[in-house]
Amino acid sequence: MPTIQCLNPDSMAKPLAAYSNIARVKASEYLFIAGQIGTDKNGKAPADFEAQCALVFEAIGAALASQGGGFANVVSFTSYLVHSQDIAKFAAYRAREFQRLFPGGAYPPNTLLIIDRLVAEAALIEIQTVAAV
Amino acid sequence: MPTIQCLNPDSMAKPLAAYSNIARVKASEYLFIAGQIGTDKNGKAPADFEAQCALVFEAIGAALASQGGGFANVVSFTSYLVHSQDIAKFAAYRAREFQRLFPGGAYPPNTLLIIDRLVAEAALIEIQTVAAV
Amino acid sequence: MPTIQCLNPDSMAKPLAAYSNIARVKASEYLFIAGQIGTDKNGKAPADFEAQCALVFEAIGAALASQGGGFANVVSFTSYLVHSQDIAKFAAYRAREFQRLFPGGAYPPNTLLIIDRLVAEAALIEIQTVAAV
Repeated sequence: MPTIQCLNPDSMAKPLAAYSNIARVKASEYLFIAGQIGTDKNGKAPADFEAQCALVFEAIGAALASQGGGFANVVSFTSYLVHSQDIAKFAAYRAREFQRLFPGGAYPPNTLLIIDRLVAEAALIEIQTVAAV
Repeated sequence: MPTIQCLNPDSMAKPLAAYSNIARVKASEYLFIAGQIGTDKNGKAPADFEAQCALVFEAIGAALASQGGGFANVVSFTSYLVHSQDIAKFAAYRAREFQRLFPGGAYPPNTLLIIDRLVAEAALIEIQTVAAV
Repeated sequence: MPTIQCLNPDSMAKPLAAYSNIARVKASEYLFIAGQIGTDKNGKAPADFEAQCALVFEAIGAALASQGGGFANVVSFTSYLVHSQDIAKFAAYRAREFQRLFPGGAYPPNTLLIIDRLVAEAALIEIQTVAAV
């Protein structure tokens, strides 16, 4: 069993969204999960940003579950958005949904970046995940 | 010796290129390799995208070999392209060359991102690698 | 205690700035630190690029110190700049300041990427860090 501590030391600025500044991890096994985009099983991305978020976290959850884990095993998220206009929507989505995905309130570190484009032109968000199992 | 499993669980969308959705890794040592761009020994980047790809994978291979490893030790690629027009070329390059680099067919996870620019203006591709040895 | 070797094998191109091509790491615990931007305690980013760099490295230092570590524990930096015009300034900043932050001269690997924007519109630089403790 890994030991994962999500930490926000007082010496650092408080996170402005649902993430922690540090994950301290003691584990013998890691999962490196390819970046997941919000496409459905037919490869289509819904137009709605929140619908894409839901598909992204569903895919990450499926990856974790397939290895006997869950969101509590995540030690790092790196999130890529195509439009800065979606930054507030992404924060709102996590504020609402992470209470369910992370019931203990231990949110993993996240790095949020706004980039040109993702592999599929219609994709608005991609998240790369590292987990410890 | 590390244990590296490249996995594509049925509960996730099938990868559309030469990568796996998950690498499950049990290792005592990791290599973190700085992002490599496609410049030659004189620091010049060839104009051709495929020629840059070849130089990038040559550099990553040299990094791995220097530590007694090879491409089978890779647990994560993060690939950055400057032009979305090169997405198909990058997929084609990997479809062809990864059969040689990864003869066992165990392709590591990859996250593909399209960004503004790399450190050298002429660079079209950069790949960041994590490996277990 | 982790073992961290920052390596530049002769078979690879020499780094053009204050980083190494490879970190080889044997550790039982890792720190995944959320990307840090150059905002002060009131959430304001100074206009000056170098001032933002100083705040970023101050935040990373605080994260490392909170876990009983320091810059010698860093195994990977990923640095995001908003303007390519700051590439030379960032190299100059590190050339000057890393002598103090890394007195042993063992600079960790860095991947440098130029992207559209960071979470705060005024932020010019963000650095994501992995450390071994």
